Amino acid sequence: MNIALDAMGGDHAPGEIVAGAVLAAREYGITVSLVGQPDVLNAELAKHATTGLDLPIVPASQVIEMDDKPAQAVRTKLDSTMVVASRMVKSGAAQAFVTAGNTGGALAAGILHIGRIKGILRPALITPFPTFNGFCTILDVGANADVRPEYLPQFAIMGSIYAERVLGRKQPVVGILSNGEEEGKGNQLVISATQLLVNTPNINFRGNIESKEVIEGLADVIITDGFTGNIFIKTAEATARMLMRGLREELSGSLVNKLGALLARSGLRRARDRFDDSPYGGAVLLGLAGIVVVAHGRSNADAIRHGIRVAKQAVEQDVPGKIAQGASELTQSVAESTLSKSNEPLIETP
Amino acid sequence: MNIALDAMGGDHAPGEIVAGAVLAAREYGITVSLVGQPDVLNAELAKHATTGLDLPIVPASQVIEMDDKPAQAVRTKLDSTMVVASRMVKSGAAQAFVTAGNTGGALAAGILHIGRIKGILRPALITPFPTFNGFCTILDVGANADVRPEYLPQFAIMGSIYAERVLGRKQPVVGILSNGEEEGKGNQLVISATQLLVNTPNINFRGNIESKEVIEGLADVIITDGFTGNIFIKTAEATARMLMRGLREELSGSLVNKLGALLARSGLRRARDRFDDSPYGGAVLLGLAGIVVVAHGRSNADAIRHGIRVAKQAVEQDVPGKIAQGASELTQSVAESTLSKSNEPLIETP
Repeated sequence: MNIALDAMGGDHAPGEIVAGAVLAAREYGITVSLVGQPDVLNAELAKHATTGLDLPIVPASQVIEMDDKPAQAVRTKLDSTMVVASRMVKSGAAQAFVTAGNTGGALAAGILHIGRIKGILRPALITPFPTFNGFCTILDVGANADVRPEYLPQFAIMGSIYAERVLGRKQPVVGILSNGEEEGKGNQLVISATQLLVNTPNINFRGNIESKEVIEGLADVIITDGFTGNIFIKTAEATARMLMRGLREELSGSLVNKLGALLARSGLRRARDRFDDSPYGGAVLLGLAGIVVVAHGRSNADAIRHGIRVAKQAVEQDVPGKIAQGASELTQSVAESTLSKSNEPLIETP
Repeated sequence: MNIALDAMGGDHAPGEIVAGAVLAAREYGITVSLVGQPDVLNAELAKHATTGLDLPIVPASQVIEMDDKPAQAVRTKLDSTMVVASRMVKSGAAQAFVTAGNTGGALAAGILHIGRIKGILRPALITPFPTFNGFCTILDVGANADVRPEYLPQFAIMGSIYAERVLGRKQPVVGILSNGEEEGKGNQLVISATQLLVNTPNINFRGNIESKEVIEGLADVIITDGFTGNIFIKTAEATARMLMRGLREELSGSLVNKLGALLARSGLRRARDRFDDSPYGGAVLLGLAGIVVVAHGRSNADAIRHGIRVAKQAVEQDVPGKIAQGASELTQSVAESTLSKSNEPLIETP
């Protein structure tokens, strides 16, 4: 297996990215292609013990920056790491592409240079999220900051296929993230999308779901626009970190507290691990004809390793094939409703 | 001081609401007028020891239900608890109105029967939020699920006045909640509002702020639409509860862990209290010519007591007077920009 890694994307590129590639190549025994400027990457590789590891360098002279306009950048920066990596996936030279760079850039590069699955209007980022009832999945967590109501039934369908065929959930329950569980609560997007969702066949739609219910694990698939979804997962992550940090501070307050924390440390560690957010390390762009994994911009080496792990699993699980097959089966029964061809531009404002 | 309480609003009305009124009347020594159906309320009051407490019943035969259309309901249900309570505030019979009922109903009743502060387009719900750097305030957390870009400079101005004149923060820093801290990140609303905010005088606008930075305490005033703001605070609240529950479960895992938790209990309690969300018990509707406090729909007696406390403090701090004065001073310098008169309908889709 060959994973193409955007070695120049992310806050800590290229150092942490290359370090993560070394970790992943060693742990998973796979090829990780480092896409970027060869001199820079050779210098980084020289810092590591790489004997026996398969870490080829694939030259790419340009980078899609955080402040680039994605749709424009993927058309003009044809020698950028993201475009080169996407083309490797398209041609079959690589089985997946991982980046910690500009999410919009990854989406645009994926749409333009890998292509969408037939019938899918907009790819969406899907990520697992820990609940009291195992993991649920949430999409979109950042690919589309603005969505149209008709995207959400597609997110529901893609998320359901993913939950059923990749995660093995039977008849996965779908909820739309809202500011109230009652029917009719929500902003205009939620209200309009709900009218489409209740008429979407082959999904198990339960209606609105609130944050509290997501965390209790009352749905398998949470659908939302990429702006709200991104804020949702970042808020949960930041709150959990704040609490654990506050706990550490308070537990070092007195000798007795310190002794208690020492005795309780296995329980404290289990509580921390239970809601560990390292799976967020990589979110899969669902709806593309190939695998693209977007890691957190702030990813360090270990987060990059997690991103590569997520990509490897998606390859093993044949995620795009399952989505395409599911979408094609559903298209036959939904042809006129949500999965039909659209005359909308390929890339709007990713 | 007389606080008008919607005794029929909320998931646990009237039992918990009346119980909360009894707690508040006893603890704060104020008058709490119970607005609702007298027979029902007398029956509830009979369950409590109320000797010496001032808990008059104000008759109102109707209730604005959770599934009522707010704008229509406040025009037609003129003998509803919310309309009666709002009119008490308008006439001066009460100094504030507290409800755990339909937020949209409270907003619509406030706009129509109390009135807005001159120059304010839309009132917004403001709530304190615990950070590593004390409390910040967030608005809107639920009054307006859909907002226009031009509302956000007003939210920034009202929030800044509140932070400066009520909470005593000098030159409060304002951030707009977004899915990335970088300039240009955000949905269309954030991007359009930012163009207005950078040109809004007399506020200390720092641009985009992410959840993580909110929690670190990097801004005093967080502005957002009511849908995103509501999901933000509910997600933080639910995550904190999940973690504390997970911690309790894990710490009862073994005898050694239990002993550790016992020794560490003062530290654990301090960590919990540090991020206690009871101030959420009541959010103030900023921008009205009187005080309206919206408590959580799920409020129990103690949450209602907190809601009444928030209302009492708002009366003591003369929140509407300070917002009106601040808005009027600013209007003189901003007349043509954001605080000018508008020809928009009084109540759109609250």
